[in-house]
Amino acid sequence: MNNPNKKRVFKKKTQDQVNIQEIAEKITTGDRGYLSKGITLIESSAVHHRPYANELVQQLLPSAGKSIRIGITGVPGAGKSTWIEAFGKTAVSKGYKIAVLAVDPSSSLSGGSILGDKTRMEFLAHHPDVFIRPSPSSGTLGGVARMTRETILLCEAAGYDLILVETVGVGQSEGIVRGMTDFFLLLSLTGAGDELQGMKKGIMELVDAIVINKADGSNREQAIQTMHDYNQILRFLTPATTGWKPRAHTCSALYNEGIQEIWELIREFIESTKESGEFDKRRSKQAVDWMSQLVQIRLNETFFNQQKKYLMKTLESKVRQNELSPSEAVDLLFNPKA
Amino acid sequence: MNNPNKKRVFKKKTQDQVNIQEIAEKITTGDRGYLSKGITLIESSAVHHRPYANELVQQLLPSAGKSIRIGITGVPGAGKSTWIEAFGKTAVSKGYKIAVLAVDPSSSLSGGSILGDKTRMEFLAHHPDVFIRPSPSSGTLGGVARMTRETILLCEAAGYDLILVETVGVGQSEGIVRGMTDFFLLLSLTGAGDELQGMKKGIMELVDAIVINKADGSNREQAIQTMHDYNQILRFLTPATTGWKPRAHTCSALYNEGIQEIWELIREFIESTKESGEFDKRRSKQAVDWMSQLVQIRLNETFFNQQKKYLMKTLESKVRQNELSPSEAVDLLFNPKA
Repeated sequence: MNNPNKKRVFKKKTQDQVNIQEIAEKITTGDRGYLSKGITLIESSAVHHRPYANELVQQLLPSAGKSIRIGITGVPGAGKSTWIEAFGKTAVSKGYKIAVLAVDPSSSLSGGSILGDKTRMEFLAHHPDVFIRPSPSSGTLGGVARMTRETILLCEAAGYDLILVETVGVGQSEGIVRGMTDFFLLLSLTGAGDELQGMKKGIMELVDAIVINKADGSNREQAIQTMHDYNQILRFLTPATTGWKPRAHTCSALYNEGIQEIWELIREFIESTKESGEFDKRRSKQAVDWMSQLVQIRLNETFFNQQKKYLMKTLESKVRQNELSPSEAVDLLFNPKA
Repeated sequence: MNNPNKKRVFKKKTQDQVNIQEIAEKITTGDRGYLSKGITLIESSAVHHRPYANELVQQLLPSAGKSIRIGITGVPGAGKSTWIEAFGKTAVSKGYKIAVLAVDPSSSLSGGSILGDKTRMEFLAHHPDVFIRPSPSSGTLGGVARMTRETILLCEAAGYDLILVETVGVGQSEGIVRGMTDFFLLLSLTGAGDELQGMKKGIMELVDAIVINKADGSNREQAIQTMHDYNQILRFLTPATTGWKPRAHTCSALYNEGIQEIWELIREFIESTKESGEFDKRRSKQAVDWMSQLVQIRLNETFFNQQKKYLMKTLESKVRQNELSPSEAVDLLFNPKA
């Protein structure tokens, strides 16, 4: 990646120049149009936009950080959209301004995106206190992560005090969303104990709560059984948040049952972690971890030009065939013989 | 790190030159002295030794890879040394040549090392078919990982057909040992269900088997209960090895009870994974993953000179204080202002 010299002084607006000062100011007044514009800048793949995007984030940093950030994961069909609609309605009724974002690494492949289907969030989609933004459809998960993290900051600067980040849980996406949120929730389906098998590796050690959705009608009993199964396992795992015991709960987003309880649970979580200092500690750690990740991404982008990428593939295949030792391969990658 | 030009042609031996050809040949004849010498070269921190070490590994690669590699982890006091003594005795009696290695990231701090106390492995320590090597005491876990992986290859080239790699499980060391072994075993203590709490994050998703040691005397009943508790959890987790269901077992290394059963279990594991192709698939993947890790280590070593390290620390603290956005910090790290 090129690193163009950054211009901090913005001259008269010309076609390709961006007035960051103006965008930043408008965002802090809560202007939705400018918020969208700012996010578009952050999501731009044009290399010469990057310094402007960085400048925008930097300018808004003092106004950001004051929200509660909630991550939500769950397999397709777990009812994430319906749950967010129900939970968001509760939040709005209590006077909160909500932003709903998504991290969907598959959207760049499918062209589609979760949250694209706003019909399942009809109430939120039309509410003036709610801002919904689908997943950026960048090529790499690292790129999507950066964009979403920066979008959170922009939304916070715009006055949104509850940020919901949804993910379908493809690849490493749960870990990435856990790494940018305060509270992380797994939305699960009802099902017999056996259905818990094949659960994604490590997912239960990331969560602050598990919510078994669709606990209604003939599903209710099974949901309660599933809840017990989850609690059984959670008992043995190291909690994701120091001092907080994650538990499983049931709810029915469709019938608005159990939503208020989750609201109270999250409130309790935020209060207790703020009191213990865990809340701020996690935020600081997340920012520093993110910085480290960006350094690694940048190092790799700088090193792996087309030629190195090609060489790496060739060497990898020799390592796979046991023709080259990994150490020897890396030597050849860094000091290719003429 | 410097990357000195590599000399493939070794001239007459002078004081600082190493005759790799000779070391390699002697190692393949099973010469223990030369094996130790080779490992010392691999563990050398002298930059000008690295090309020789790489050359040695590369030369021995065709003779390596034919062993069974077993990783063993467990908290201090779980009886790892006693278990290895008992298990090793069984293996030796069946005609196997065994190498016992260790990955102990704490040894560079404490100056000591697991396996240092050979008194607990008195039989193995004096057996001609057993080679014991304590953990390298390098500064970084990445360094220790490289050295241990390469030591495995050297031991294999020397004819050892069973490699045991022990780790105390500090930091990321279990993941690292899992990444270099075919079969990974957690040695656990007896204890009530509650003792399973506080177990290390993610450890149970790495294992192919759990062995509850010290299942003797008044401990036996508790051990069986612990075994049931573990099996309860294992049921819900994604297995570390495709097609293999990890289970908990009991044994008493002290009274040599249950050791033969673990031997059979491992034999069954190796047979079934070789048949399904998982064995070779894992080996290839491990080599390629190791290569990727070496690339990352090298990229970081090249970039982070003293000045960059210092700058990184300064920037990190500003990110922690929320004075700088991570993106802005990384920009400053790569393009520092004069």
